[in-house]
Amino acid sequence: MGHRQPFVVRLEGSVEHHLSGTIALLTRTPAALNALLCDLPETWTHRNEGENSWTVFGIIGHLVHAERTDWIPRAKFLLQFGETRPFPPFDRLGHVREIQGKSLPQLLDEFARVRSESLCQLRDLHLRPEDLEQRGRHPTFGRVTLSQLLATWAAHDLTHLHQISRVMAHQYRQAVGPWSAYLGVLQCAGHSA
Amino acid sequence: MGHRQPFVVRLEGSVEHHLSGTIALLTRTPAALNALLCDLPETWTHRNEGENSWTVFGIIGHLVHAERTDWIPRAKFLLQFGETRPFPPFDRLGHVREIQGKSLPQLLDEFARVRSESLCQLRDLHLRPEDLEQRGRHPTFGRVTLSQLLATWAAHDLTHLHQISRVMAHQYRQAVGPWSAYLGVLQCAGHSA
Repeated sequence: MGHRQPFVVRLEGSVEHHLSGTIALLTRTPAALNALLCDLPETWTHRNEGENSWTVFGIIGHLVHAERTDWIPRAKFLLQFGETRPFPPFDRLGHVREIQGKSLPQLLDEFARVRSESLCQLRDLHLRPEDLEQRGRHPTFGRVTLSQLLATWAAHDLTHLHQISRVMAHQYRQAVGPWSAYLGVLQCAGHSA
Repeated sequence: MGHRQPFVVRLEGSVEHHLSGTIALLTRTPAALNALLCDLPETWTHRNEGENSWTVFGIIGHLVHAERTDWIPRAKFLLQFGETRPFPPFDRLGHVREIQGKSLPQLLDEFARVRSESLCQLRDLHLRPEDLEQRGRHPTFGRVTLSQLLATWAAHDLTHLHQISRVMAHQYRQAVGPWSAYLGVLQCAGHSA
């Protein structure tokens, strides 16, 4: 794709994947998370939803880890091996190593840096519309397209923004008193953990 | 509270409402939403989840409207009338007028401005810990405290950040293909609309 005009890929069921829209979102997420979280009191960022659930701090570590090992590495793997080999599995607990000895501002800076590097690598792939229809093999659910992988990259940012807002709201579950009935985020079943 | 050190209010069940934490979050939300949404393609911001559900654009209008008519006005009403009068009801469709003829960047700027004004007014109340335990009357569920109202103000930001991430992710529901099974935000039941 390089510096050409953004293009639209028509998928089955006439769903369109706008690569330019994906890049627009991926570009903005680090600054949005930084504006929301940097130097926020740890009561918001270092508490979880109980048991082994994730803190906001851990979620940012997961985003850094996914950036290093998931999106661009998988895109390159798909372009190289097609459906002949499944993607190497993603370690959903890889963030545990990622966060050791770091502060939240450090992780937020790191996320901004690795995201920026990923987007440079994406541009360097010079993807053409037909490349987005190339197929790879997911270790669990089989055939996927590059277009689906890149759309998932953006949606993954959103699933963790959704989770972050839920983990934070949980810290105020008692403090809001009867208003909890009106706050949808407090009814969320915790399906992003 | 003015410029004194932040304080902690101990609520029933030893839940604490940290007013400084509430203010920290309220201060950050406008910049976070601006970083995420400003100049994002309208495929993300002007589409909804079907039927009469809200767009991201409408949600920002709702935040502006709530800022004008809900939080500080209710806090002042509570301090003035206590439990003797219920809060005037909040118009959950007030954003329809709020968004007419405006662009998303205009609404984001407006939200930042009215939020900043609200926080100035909050400081000007010079709340003492005992003020936070003052009681008011909600038109639906009766007795509430000022502490609960202020905690709800922060949690309301989070419920709409949660909704925004869900509305945006919905736009990629088909594009992500089989990955939808792994994306918690796509399983969210839509309880914030």
